[in-house]
Amino acid sequence: MNTHFHAIIPAGGSGTRLWPLSRKASPKFLHDVLGTGRSLIQSTWDRVAPLVGPEKVWVVTGESHRDQVAEQLPEIAVHKILAEPSPKDSAAAIGLATMLIAQEDPDAIVGSFSADHSITNVDEFRLVIDQACAAAETGDIVTVGIMPRNPATAYGYIETGDLLGLDGAPTARRAMAFAEKPAASTARAYVNSGRYRWNAGMFIAKASALLEVLETEDPTLYAGLSRIAQAWGSDAQAEVLAEVWPDLEKRAIDYVVAEPAAAAGRVIVIPGDFGWDDVGDFDSVARLRQPVPGEPAGVISIGQNCDLLEIDASGVVFSESKKPRTVAIVGLDDLVVVDTEDVLLITSRSHAQDVKKAVSAAGERGLDDLL
Amino acid sequence: MNTHFHAIIPAGGSGTRLWPLSRKASPKFLHDVLGTGRSLIQSTWDRVAPLVGPEKVWVVTGESHRDQVAEQLPEIAVHKILAEPSPKDSAAAIGLATMLIAQEDPDAIVGSFSADHSITNVDEFRLVIDQACAAAETGDIVTVGIMPRNPATAYGYIETGDLLGLDGAPTARRAMAFAEKPAASTARAYVNSGRYRWNAGMFIAKASALLEVLETEDPTLYAGLSRIAQAWGSDAQAEVLAEVWPDLEKRAIDYVVAEPAAAAGRVIVIPGDFGWDDVGDFDSVARLRQPVPGEPAGVISIGQNCDLLEIDASGVVFSESKKPRTVAIVGLDDLVVVDTEDVLLITSRSHAQDVKKAVSAAGERGLDDLL
Repeated sequence: MNTHFHAIIPAGGSGTRLWPLSRKASPKFLHDVLGTGRSLIQSTWDRVAPLVGPEKVWVVTGESHRDQVAEQLPEIAVHKILAEPSPKDSAAAIGLATMLIAQEDPDAIVGSFSADHSITNVDEFRLVIDQACAAAETGDIVTVGIMPRNPATAYGYIETGDLLGLDGAPTARRAMAFAEKPAASTARAYVNSGRYRWNAGMFIAKASALLEVLETEDPTLYAGLSRIAQAWGSDAQAEVLAEVWPDLEKRAIDYVVAEPAAAAGRVIVIPGDFGWDDVGDFDSVARLRQPVPGEPAGVISIGQNCDLLEIDASGVVFSESKKPRTVAIVGLDDLVVVDTEDVLLITSRSHAQDVKKAVSAAGERGLDDLL
Repeated sequence: MNTHFHAIIPAGGSGTRLWPLSRKASPKFLHDVLGTGRSLIQSTWDRVAPLVGPEKVWVVTGESHRDQVAEQLPEIAVHKILAEPSPKDSAAAIGLATMLIAQEDPDAIVGSFSADHSITNVDEFRLVIDQACAAAETGDIVTVGIMPRNPATAYGYIETGDLLGLDGAPTARRAMAFAEKPAASTARAYVNSGRYRWNAGMFIAKASALLEVLETEDPTLYAGLSRIAQAWGSDAQAEVLAEVWPDLEKRAIDYVVAEPAAAAGRVIVIPGDFGWDDVGDFDSVARLRQPVPGEPAGVISIGQNCDLLEIDASGVVFSESKKPRTVAIVGLDDLVVVDTEDVLLITSRSHAQDVKKAVSAAGERGLDDLL
């Protein structure tokens, strides 16, 4: 892999559809949501650190999560955990990390990989990122387009164009456009066309190229981040951060960089098919835990102190019980149970997206301790 | 009401279909299963004590439940709690109580009322028992036939015959026969005929008449119980009980007394329609707790420390949580949740009968502490 390749892991978002496992104070990337023995951010580290070298991994996260991230990733250099005073969406997070990387390494290529996604085929992932890194040498912004498993409406799509025939990136294609999360009929048309891929939110680019697009498309954000980056590591860091950060606009990297670059014909997409999932809800989790995809697996237990007793049942039980407890499920299929100290959630896989309604309802009732 | 009328409350059975609320060590009659503020045996006392006078109520229960019964029924005379060394079914329990009552009051009429049933219309119940008491003066065995709400297969039935035109019991009819829990098609035929009633297991009879049938139909059981009754209250009580009780045969009063008496044309049935329910499973419980019968009521909470958060959900949640806890239910109907210290049960009203399978499975796994 390119020795100038650096990884950025944005670790934000509260993951309300995985509530009450995921909370504001303890978002999903800090949890072993899939019962693998590693939290999602640890699994991301395990995939990414070998690609770039552990000394070239950066994490951008909330101030309140800094200590937990440091504890979970003991190999990371402390100054490479960038703590945001408040959440400002991905453009600010990735933009600042890219500037700091460029200060250390002007020839850097940066790759951004979410802290809370899952990838089952890491070898294939590595081959795709190898191609992305090679394609980034062109100076274009490179993204990964996931082969859709179904006409999902929960993901954005990338429309792919012609093969580019790049050295070291034989499957690279031009990205024609990014499409928002579509309606069901549009999603079906996308998938049937064979030209659309899921947008997994991965971006690989020369730091200089990414920053050039950022400067052109949002000069205000670029100027603010530049002031912070210049003060970084100096005595003025805290002061400048406190002064500039609160006024930064919240914008997604997709809108500020990827879409304008695609419109200018400057985005490349590498098709990928490596079991990517955004672990967005409990239905995702249950699917990812099925021993044989497509086959029912009875009830799956994730967590501690849970002794299962299932009678004609299937689904997934998360237990954070302090004491051993038997969970008996009788005659219910695709059930989702999350048993925590202060909240017991019961829903079904088909209602997994509605969990956020329960979180909203808890918020409306002022149950802030539970959020 | 007749001043010779005495009530017997058999308090046995473990209520496995209400597990894990009901356990061997703490059966359903000791629990406030319906969230009324009174346990089922307390509600039974509340119905029966005013009928006969609190000094004429007897409870037959297991040795291990004696203290809890005494605690829950502070008005009962201690010597009227008969503690069985081991469960011997209803013929032994009711037979022994009847003998002890007859020793105190040779002209006694006894009525037997289960400790774990529910009756919603107590005024109507009282009128029916008034008639039963009057009918018992004939020397026949009197029972109550509940107007079937549906062709239930979980109850036994009583076939009713002609009106008898008895003084004080204008609706009394001859009972032609008792029928076991029927198949669905048989149950429909019973209900459509208009002649069949549910057997609620209530028996009202002169003590002398009941004992006469018992002596004829099971002389061995009668002899054993007589030995115990004669020693009762004397220094020999414990010794005789320990010697005789273990060998008593387990038989139901229905087989030993009711069926033979019916075959001999000596059973009277008083039709009753007073919202009787055997509280046999969680479907019963959910129905009994519906504010308006037949209308869905969202999620009903019974117990303590449970804060409900329901999104498109209905059913019933029992909580024995030691600490306040939010139970969030999203997108599930007719759900049944029982949240206890060591067991969490999740099922649906339509699978309420299958809860006993979970209890069997727990037993097979040797989880004896949970039974």
